[in-house]
Amino acid sequence: MADRFNWADCNADAAIKKHRTTDATITVLREDHTPVAHQEVVVAQRNQKFLFGCTGFPIIPLANDELEGEAKAQAEQLDEKLRDLCNFVTLPFYWGRFEPERGQPDTERIIKTAQWFVDRGCLVKGHPLCWHTVTADWLLEMSNAEILETQVARIRREVADFAGLIDMWDVINEVVIMPIFDKYDNGITRIANDLGRIGIIRTMFEAARSTNPGATLLLNDFETSEAYEILIEGCLEAGIKIDTIGIQSHMHQGYWGVGRTRKILERYARFNLPIHFTEVSLVSGQLMPPEIVDLNDHQVDEWPSTPEGETRQAEEAVEFYKTLLAHPLVEGITWWGLPDGGWLKAPSGLVRSDYSNKPAYEALLDLVKGEWWLAPTKMMTDGEGKLCIDGFLGEYTLSWAGKTAAFQLDEKGTTIAEVVL
Amino acid sequence: MADRFNWADCNADAAIKKHRTTDATITVLREDHTPVAHQEVVVAQRNQKFLFGCTGFPIIPLANDELEGEAKAQAEQLDEKLRDLCNFVTLPFYWGRFEPERGQPDTERIIKTAQWFVDRGCLVKGHPLCWHTVTADWLLEMSNAEILETQVARIRREVADFAGLIDMWDVINEVVIMPIFDKYDNGITRIANDLGRIGIIRTMFEAARSTNPGATLLLNDFETSEAYEILIEGCLEAGIKIDTIGIQSHMHQGYWGVGRTRKILERYARFNLPIHFTEVSLVSGQLMPPEIVDLNDHQVDEWPSTPEGETRQAEEAVEFYKTLLAHPLVEGITWWGLPDGGWLKAPSGLVRSDYSNKPAYEALLDLVKGEWWLAPTKMMTDGEGKLCIDGFLGEYTLSWAGKTAAFQLDEKGTTIAEVVL
Repeated sequence: MADRFNWADCNADAAIKKHRTTDATITVLREDHTPVAHQEVVVAQRNQKFLFGCTGFPIIPLANDELEGEAKAQAEQLDEKLRDLCNFVTLPFYWGRFEPERGQPDTERIIKTAQWFVDRGCLVKGHPLCWHTVTADWLLEMSNAEILETQVARIRREVADFAGLIDMWDVINEVVIMPIFDKYDNGITRIANDLGRIGIIRTMFEAARSTNPGATLLLNDFETSEAYEILIEGCLEAGIKIDTIGIQSHMHQGYWGVGRTRKILERYARFNLPIHFTEVSLVSGQLMPPEIVDLNDHQVDEWPSTPEGETRQAEEAVEFYKTLLAHPLVEGITWWGLPDGGWLKAPSGLVRSDYSNKPAYEALLDLVKGEWWLAPTKMMTDGEGKLCIDGFLGEYTLSWAGKTAAFQLDEKGTTIAEVVL
Repeated sequence: MADRFNWADCNADAAIKKHRTTDATITVLREDHTPVAHQEVVVAQRNQKFLFGCTGFPIIPLANDELEGEAKAQAEQLDEKLRDLCNFVTLPFYWGRFEPERGQPDTERIIKTAQWFVDRGCLVKGHPLCWHTVTADWLLEMSNAEILETQVARIRREVADFAGLIDMWDVINEVVIMPIFDKYDNGITRIANDLGRIGIIRTMFEAARSTNPGATLLLNDFETSEAYEILIEGCLEAGIKIDTIGIQSHMHQGYWGVGRTRKILERYARFNLPIHFTEVSLVSGQLMPPEIVDLNDHQVDEWPSTPEGETRQAEEAVEFYKTLLAHPLVEGITWWGLPDGGWLKAPSGLVRSDYSNKPAYEALLDLVKGEWWLAPTKMMTDGEGKLCIDGFLGEYTLSWAGKTAAFQLDEKGTTIAEVVL
């Protein structure tokens, strides 16, 4: 197994600097390769390498031009806030909603939405291709062999239809409980019982992989215990290629804190695979009572956001993001629901129901586009056309004399590069 | 995965009859193969096919002739009670006690004890070959590579030394928590972290299997959750041959009841492998408080057996054994500690500290040597020398005219056999 990340004396800011930035020496050249010496240039970051994500569900009507007037203006406002903070979006593929009537999938609307985000520089992930919750009811009329065949065909269809727009997938969701899920009968639990957990993961990953070999395929679960760790080990021992480990973190019952978060990071870091925190929730109101086991059981009429809750949420969000970015294997974080009032009506958004910013939105934006970002900055090249940037990994532009060139800083540590204008 | 056992309308007694007995038609023949017609014969059971087990640790001094006087008489009494109830014994191979000083294993004493039980018709199992608890302290001075090599060599040594006497092993114990066990540093947790859970199971099973290919090898755990189920699935998917699934059931905090017991049976029955309940405890005194997580944390000066507790223990023991025997995959049950006052000083024995019988002992004996047993019974053969036995699977004798022959009833359902006298 991999060497452990050393948390002892880990100062999050120092670890973030170590793992997320590079000391770059850039030589600025003209097209004839002579150095642009002793000149003032402007360097600006235009994207992060790290994936700062959120769900893009509310943008679907906007991207499909289904809105007018105030509703459209509001959606545009939300879209802008989303893209200010995020370079990564999760779009919904819940089978029961994506294809409520068999043979009539919502492909076109989601393609338009994916295209909307891709055009605006966001990476898009599809979620999920196989899950026992919100799956298609019409599976219940089939034999298990037919369910399996239909599920595999569904994966092949979606992965093929979206290739090029969506090349990252939560292939299968919550497999730890999948075969024992007993709230209601559903087609996916039935076949999970036939195939076993590793068996169903293998089948669904193979369907996705063979359709889009270049795609990044995630296993995703809300389980953060040994059970999920052992399941991943079993998959890897069985030869299943998991590209990225997806970990949910719906903290409706309270923030995990640095200790528990680090413990979970250690548990999954042993596989030395990239990790995504795929579903982050922190509420800015009352916490859900601790005795609730399935969060879906907590049904309330309203769940208000409070000033004290918003202050707490902002502090927790900053600490959580810093703790995650301090670990070198974490490559993405997805906030689950930008506005309040989505899943469970929880005040777990970064903006309120009226789309005004909460402190957590401002605080994360201060990190992503502030502390961890290089705003347009004037710099002088030296006699050899060189300049130094101590910057976060990502995409940059360099402008001089009316020309602009883009370059990437991809590797932590030190970078030596040339930019030709 | 295997067809599920149907618990619906499961009457335990009816299921036990279905899965544990046979309708046998026996033809009694003389050596010249003429039928012993119209004769009175005596049929008697002499062993059960089902493994009714307990730990044999207190018999070690007796088997090694280390006792005298009252101590010897008491040990003989305990040995007799053990063998009245049990045909299966677990002997201890805790590394830290078996080989407290490196190179001086307690092989001879345990061989004598195993021989003692084999001579008296008991099957013997060794427990355990690899475990992070009570392991050898002297491993701590080694590199991880040396620990691994020494652990593998230890398995090869024991499995070879005891082959023929002990051909059944709890190869590795409590792997679910093995790499995260953090109460104290130990050599086995160190290598479990290097190898991963499936990795260490594979290595230890291969060491045992290659040394004694005919041995029955168990994985054993106190975990009864999804984590252990997923670990087993991972091992099987990785091609590791587990002969029997071992499930501990230390119920110091209260009897599981039929519902939980059946749920656990269902969880592990999906692999269609034999199941042993390897460590059964039910206390006849106060229950351990529910907030205790590691049972070892409950340290008391004394823990008395009470009359009410003994009545309850007997009822629970009978119901538990019946629930287990009703499931066709369960092949063995081992009561953990025949006399009171062993592990944790708990009143979890079937006999008291003074070796007098508790109601649970009497009740289980009434099943094993009563309701589920054929005492010597006179029967008449018909004109073709035939007689019918509706009996529990196991070994039998048939006596006539001063001669006795043994025969086995091995397959549930119906049996047709000949016995030659």
